[in-house]
Amino acid sequence: MIDWEAIEKEAIRIRRDLHTYPESGWLEFRTTSVAASMLESLGYEVRTGLEVIEPKSVMGRAPQDVIERNIARAVEQGADPKWIERMDGYTGALGILDTGRPGPTVAFRFDIDCVDVAETQDPDHRPRKEGFASVNPGWMHACGHDAHTAMGLMLARVLMEEKDELCGKVLIIFQPAEEGVRGAPAMVDRGILLDVDALVAIHIGGGIPSGTVTTGCHGFLCTTKFDVTYTGVSTHAAGSPQEGRNALLAAATAALNLHAIAPHSDGRTRINVGVLTAGTGRNVIPGFAYMKAETRGDNDDVAAYVYDRAMAVVKGSAEVYGVRCEVVRTGAAISADSNFVLREIIRDALQGIPGITNLQMDGDALGSDDATWMMRAVQDRGGVATYMRLGSHTGVGHHNDHFDVDEATLVTGVRCLEAIVRKGARFLDRKG
Amino acid sequence: MIDWEAIEKEAIRIRRDLHTYPESGWLEFRTTSVAASMLESLGYEVRTGLEVIEPKSVMGRAPQDVIERNIARAVEQGADPKWIERMDGYTGALGILDTGRPGPTVAFRFDIDCVDVAETQDPDHRPRKEGFASVNPGWMHACGHDAHTAMGLMLARVLMEEKDELCGKVLIIFQPAEEGVRGAPAMVDRGILLDVDALVAIHIGGGIPSGTVTTGCHGFLCTTKFDVTYTGVSTHAAGSPQEGRNALLAAATAALNLHAIAPHSDGRTRINVGVLTAGTGRNVIPGFAYMKAETRGDNDDVAAYVYDRAMAVVKGSAEVYGVRCEVVRTGAAISADSNFVLREIIRDALQGIPGITNLQMDGDALGSDDATWMMRAVQDRGGVATYMRLGSHTGVGHHNDHFDVDEATLVTGVRCLEAIVRKGARFLDRKG
Amino acid sequence: MIDWEAIEKEAIRIRRDLHTYPESGWLEFRTTSVAASMLESLGYEVRTGLEVIEPKSVMGRAPQDVIERNIARAVEQGADPKWIERMDGYTGALGILDTGRPGPTVAFRFDIDCVDVAETQDPDHRPRKEGFASVNPGWMHACGHDAHTAMGLMLARVLMEEKDELCGKVLIIFQPAEEGVRGAPAMVDRGILLDVDALVAIHIGGGIPSGTVTTGCHGFLCTTKFDVTYTGVSTHAAGSPQEGRNALLAAATAALNLHAIAPHSDGRTRINVGVLTAGTGRNVIPGFAYMKAETRGDNDDVAAYVYDRAMAVVKGSAEVYGVRCEVVRTGAAISADSNFVLREIIRDALQGIPGITNLQMDGDALGSDDATWMMRAVQDRGGVATYMRLGSHTGVGHHNDHFDVDEATLVTGVRCLEAIVRKGARFLDRKG
Amino acid sequence: MIDWEAIEKEAIRIRRDLHTYPESGWLEFRTTSVAASMLESLGYEVRTGLEVIEPKSVMGRAPQDVIERNIARAVEQGADPKWIERMDGYTGALGILDTGRPGPTVAFRFDIDCVDVAETQDPDHRPRKEGFASVNPGWMHACGHDAHTAMGLMLARVLMEEKDELCGKVLIIFQPAEEGVRGAPAMVDRGILLDVDALVAIHIGGGIPSGTVTTGCHGFLCTTKFDVTYTGVSTHAAGSPQEGRNALLAAATAALNLHAIAPHSDGRTRINVGVLTAGTGRNVIPGFAYMKAETRGDNDDVAAYVYDRAMAVVKGSAEVYGVRCEVVRTGAAISADSNFVLREIIRDALQGIPGITNLQMDGDALGSDDATWMMRAVQDRGGVATYMRLGSHTGVGHHNDHFDVDEATLVTGVRCLEAIVRKGARFLDRKG
Repeated sequence: MIDWEAIEKEAIRIRRDLHTYPESGWLEFRTTSVAASMLESLGYEVRTGLEVIEPKSVMGRAPQDVIERNIARAVEQGADPKWIERMDGYTGALGILDTGRPGPTVAFRFDIDCVDVAETQDPDHRPRKEGFASVNPGWMHACGHDAHTAMGLMLARVLMEEKDELCGKVLIIFQPAEEGVRGAPAMVDRGILLDVDALVAIHIGGGIPSGTVTTGCHGFLCTTKFDVTYTGVSTHAAGSPQEGRNALLAAATAALNLHAIAPHSDGRTRINVGVLTAGTGRNVIPGFAYMKAETRGDNDDVAAYVYDRAMAVVKGSAEVYGVRCEVVRTGAAISADSNFVLREIIRDALQGIPGITNLQMDGDALGSDDATWMMRAVQDRGGVATYMRLGSHTGVGHHNDHFDVDEATLVTGVRCLEAIVRKGARFLDRKG
Repeated sequence: MIDWEAIEKEAIRIRRDLHTYPESGWLEFRTTSVAASMLESLGYEVRTGLEVIEPKSVMGRAPQDVIERNIARAVEQGADPKWIERMDGYTGALGILDTGRPGPTVAFRFDIDCVDVAETQDPDHRPRKEGFASVNPGWMHACGHDAHTAMGLMLARVLMEEKDELCGKVLIIFQPAEEGVRGAPAMVDRGILLDVDALVAIHIGGGIPSGTVTTGCHGFLCTTKFDVTYTGVSTHAAGSPQEGRNALLAAATAALNLHAIAPHSDGRTRINVGVLTAGTGRNVIPGFAYMKAETRGDNDDVAAYVYDRAMAVVKGSAEVYGVRCEVVRTGAAISADSNFVLREIIRDALQGIPGITNLQMDGDALGSDDATWMMRAVQDRGGVATYMRLGSHTGVGHHNDHFDVDEATLVTGVRCLEAIVRKGARFLDRKG
Repeated sequence: MIDWEAIEKEAIRIRRDLHTYPESGWLEFRTTSVAASMLESLGYEVRTGLEVIEPKSVMGRAPQDVIERNIARAVEQGADPKWIERMDGYTGALGILDTGRPGPTVAFRFDIDCVDVAETQDPDHRPRKEGFASVNPGWMHACGHDAHTAMGLMLARVLMEEKDELCGKVLIIFQPAEEGVRGAPAMVDRGILLDVDALVAIHIGGGIPSGTVTTGCHGFLCTTKFDVTYTGVSTHAAGSPQEGRNALLAAATAALNLHAIAPHSDGRTRINVGVLTAGTGRNVIPGFAYMKAETRGDNDDVAAYVYDRAMAVVKGSAEVYGVRCEVVRTGAAISADSNFVLREIIRDALQGIPGITNLQMDGDALGSDDATWMMRAVQDRGGVATYMRLGSHTGVGHHNDHFDVDEATLVTGVRCLEAIVRKGARFLDRKG
Repeated sequence: MIDWEAIEKEAIRIRRDLHTYPESGWLEFRTTSVAASMLESLGYEVRTGLEVIEPKSVMGRAPQDVIERNIARAVEQGADPKWIERMDGYTGALGILDTGRPGPTVAFRFDIDCVDVAETQDPDHRPRKEGFASVNPGWMHACGHDAHTAMGLMLARVLMEEKDELCGKVLIIFQPAEEGVRGAPAMVDRGILLDVDALVAIHIGGGIPSGTVTTGCHGFLCTTKFDVTYTGVSTHAAGSPQEGRNALLAAATAALNLHAIAPHSDGRTRINVGVLTAGTGRNVIPGFAYMKAETRGDNDDVAAYVYDRAMAVVKGSAEVYGVRCEVVRTGAAISADSNFVLREIIRDALQGIPGITNLQMDGDALGSDDATWMMRAVQDRGGVATYMRLGSHTGVGHHNDHFDVDEATLVTGVRCLEAIVRKGARFLDRKG
């Protein structure tokens, strides 16, 4: 029998520890170390670093000096040098539980990175009041991935405890760099999902109240994140203006015309230039400009349309000002739907779980999540996948500096996932 | 002895006749016929059509159906079918007076086209009050080329009268399509200036009062006139916006960024998008846009800089919207300076001419004139050239629909030009 | 018994007559005369002109001289001067059939104007091949309103034939100026719908195949049409650029930024600058610019959002260039839904009608239609309304210069509408 | 007799000391302390802080916390706390030498601030090779103001040595914050120039070779420096775009249209948006944008024209996007001409000075300098003023991170200024 009270306590402890030491995407060295250590101590086969990450598919990873600085920071904050070494610079971990009995391979995906937001100084903010607010400046677990990681580790524990009652294999995936949708493709392309029959991703919060659980959702926006750098020629603005090539005006032209891309009749499109920085001095024609932008679309075709148009705008604007332009894709997510059969299986498995007051079959995906790459990879090989949402009162919206989760929902989440394995797995065996 | 009173009367008569029947550039069929007829009747050797125009160098000429419609109109308005036939569709005329005696070849250039302005309906406007306002809708001699043509013909007459006292040769050039600087290169490239030792162009008005004559000027802006056509794809703006390629927005982007071209430290630059028309219906994404634009610069290099930048803007804007763009050069003028020696010769020749109260050696060129191509052509072969300005009270500025000239200054202009031949020619003989 | 073969023949005859003489919105003098004459000859009480139009609510009507010119043209093309006089300059007609028996008032709305498209010269285009192509240059019945008007008149005829079997009242409305959504409010505000229990509008074509009939539809976009005029100061672009106030650049700025208005999460938005004309001459800073634009939104709030943002863009752009701006609303349509109960009644009434192979309860409204004002007016007073679609093979899309309808579907349309009155009216009586 | 060799050595020593500790405008606490200390030790009456600065006229001064941090830094780098206290937060110093004999008051202006450029790490850059490269990150004397200050102090020394041979008064002004033209008005408005008969400003380098000295120059551009802040509303770009007010697009619109301001026929105009930063995150509609910009014009009217147009653009762009905008003027300079009579007096005084190989009466002012405020202030009260240029090989252009001066020219500069006092002062006495 599982001691759910202990599980709850431990889930909260881990969540608070991770909340104290949030780490941005591809820099989750301490978090990965924490996860890998615990998986190992529980008896899992653990993979990390280049065992779970395909470097060519990595998007939006910081330059080497930042990597190194953060490895040092992580060690200082308690990361185990043994695991750091095994990571070889690439975060993320996979724990494998092989029951030895025939049965399906069920995978669970937990994202582990934080967001680039400074946690509020407000003394009434609970993490601050109770002493587990972020100590890493400018970083905060304001999207609940600390809770995800804690649930993943507690799921690992309870499954190991009841291993003898289970069949098939379970993969517990700790994915880096979900923010900016930068991490999942590198895990997919490394092949960790090749044998997976069913994949479950779960997200806490999202405006759904504590007690509500959604077995799947639809409506993910396809998105591409990209950075644009314009390089022109700086020159004294009054003395020799004709010698300049104005990168700022190229960027301004691009920004306006990106936002003017025509909509699409087959679905919503979104485009945003979120950051623009250009120029060095007031009297210098700016030879440099940089933009962070993203495009979104309701489905693959619509998203491709808006991205293609965006590239034409970006490049044409460079021509207008005779400047060079470089585009770096820093993230991408596709659309994916939750399989109906899996949602049904989960619905049945979740009957009677304490803490659930409202069990829904469907919900809206809010925005984009790179879990869709994993879902599509599993589905493309004939498996099933779903994206569950775990209601949790969060006070404010995600990414807000006052974000906090209802910690009582953590154990509910673990119970749900455990039930899927224990009660649902047998329905998922395609080989049987 | 010249009967200057008769000359004055006839100059005014001709000017008023031409004012009544203004003709836009490359469509001066009646005007050319009037000039050619009179030159012939005076005893000049007359050339017209392809004898004076190189078709490959023609810029901004209307399509064939407009040419034909205007030939018909010109005949209706009194053009001589014999001359129409000799023109072969190309306007402009050259009268040659060969004294048979050794001496220099002196050429005079008179532009003959009108501007595309509707003459005012104001009953107090003198041409209307006295019954010689334009009968050609949308066309008006609002730049004084009617006066130029009349002066040219009266110059032809007086020179023929005193032919026996003159030496060398005189060319009297009636140039089409000065407005938009479209006509001079076609005459230069046809070779009519090859033997010219001295070229004199003259312009009436220009803000200079009656009585003032300037023997030369400097500061012509180099200019290029060009039309841009963007061709995209029209589509229903609400129903299938993604299928459109918006030519209107390409043109808007181009217009803004053309005006944002950086200045040049070596001289003034100017750019103007004077006309923009795009689109067909309110609810249709515009698949078509058209712009009339021009660039100018203080000298060849500066002008080339701004034109090159303009082409980058025009083409880059097409890329931004995925539309095709076509650029047609419709006119061009270069810079040219009036030779000092010729200005001196003219100054001396003009001493004592009635009607001149203020004789200046230098003046500002206002804007651009394609006479500069002729000046440069003569100067490049070792000859001299100048651009004189003949003061004349005009009430309002050039191209204004109330424009009129002080007709008393016409005979002064003829006297000046006659004096240049009679008194100045001997100083101009390079062969002597 | 109705002779449906004769009805079909006559419907086609009328449609072809109207197709030959298309008339743009608010200029349908001949069309109104045709409709009024026939209604009167059938025995209808006929209203027209200020009896059916509230002048204050008229949008997008041409200036008086155009009105007068078109009245003359209409008379020349066969309009009856008696009806022209009754119209008093305002087109549109209403035929009233009062059975004298208690029962509901059922109204049918037919729009009568053409679109501003020149009919193709293609000799294979059937209206050209068979000799009924448009004789009015630049105007064409490319949206099927000729068919609508013909159906309305044939409906009038068959209802009058079976008048003794009917109850209540029938209104047959011939509405001007649907294109540009300019006409319906003027009829609504004149009060012609005050007593109406049920309103049926019908539209032919729309990509639906012959044989399909839709009893209602939803998804009309709210829209506002508006014209923008910018008035700045013209000046010579090279001579005194600082004295200009550039209306062309104000319009270019507005156009770009209008298209960059952010989308809305509650529904689709659309914006289009369909026409932009600015400037007079290449070397003149343009002191004048004019734009035809429209905004749309999925519902009233979304539409109001995008229109409000558009006004800010239009006015701010004027400030940027120091020019004046004037905005004229030239059309508007709202959203409206087809009542379920009416759609059901119609579905039942249409059982067994020859020519119908596919009877649907619902369909997409494509774009906007000002019939929504009439629908909402009836619904707001407790009545019901629907917008039916009558499938008809049209070869190409609406507003295309090759547009044509499948004339065999005309009689199907008349049969449907007749059946609604004969079989459905008794279910519509709210007073009963 | 002056020991010019010692003066040269000391000038170079001081210049290198200041080069090592460059200080940005309004933060020259150490530099002011160095100057004030030396002036005092030489026997000058010294004024500083609010004795020479009018706080209301200060432009572009950093906020209080930056001031305080830099006072601490300056003290750490050797500033004398006594002088720091006297400064009261405001840098700049004035040394007064009163000979006690009747005569004119001659003032010399030396600017003391550095530019915001990081000095190159190139080991071949002489200041680095010889160990006096900047130790203040991001700051560098890349415009020669270290040399100016050193010359001013050596001028103070030699004049004091020969005080008994001089008449009248000499003011030696050390002006803060010339870069960005932020400092001079505060000194003018404090009244330190009220009695001045002649003012001499001097600038080293400027593309003129060592050995050349120019006694005056003309062609200063009037300029205004200003910062623009747009404040809109941030919102999630995909989730609720309609709630945002996009400050980035407002800034982009402003930037484009600022550069599109029409030129002026009465003189050159210049405009530059040198820096633009906007937005916080890729997926957030930017609620904040900031621009550093400047306008320039050949004369007061032209400059006023372009600044007024710029303000319209800045404000109109805010309206377009419904955002607030705030404009802060951070600097300004006017035009001023060097008096002919003073240039002649200087030309005569400079005859025979060692090191001068080319003495010119006139030169081009490159760009803007706020010394013009001082020149105009003196001229407006009947005095004379000039802006001399001291040739010095600098290798690269001003503000380049490799900038260095030819130190051999420092003593030439001191000799020139000394000669002006010794030989020229008697011609400057207006009271005499």
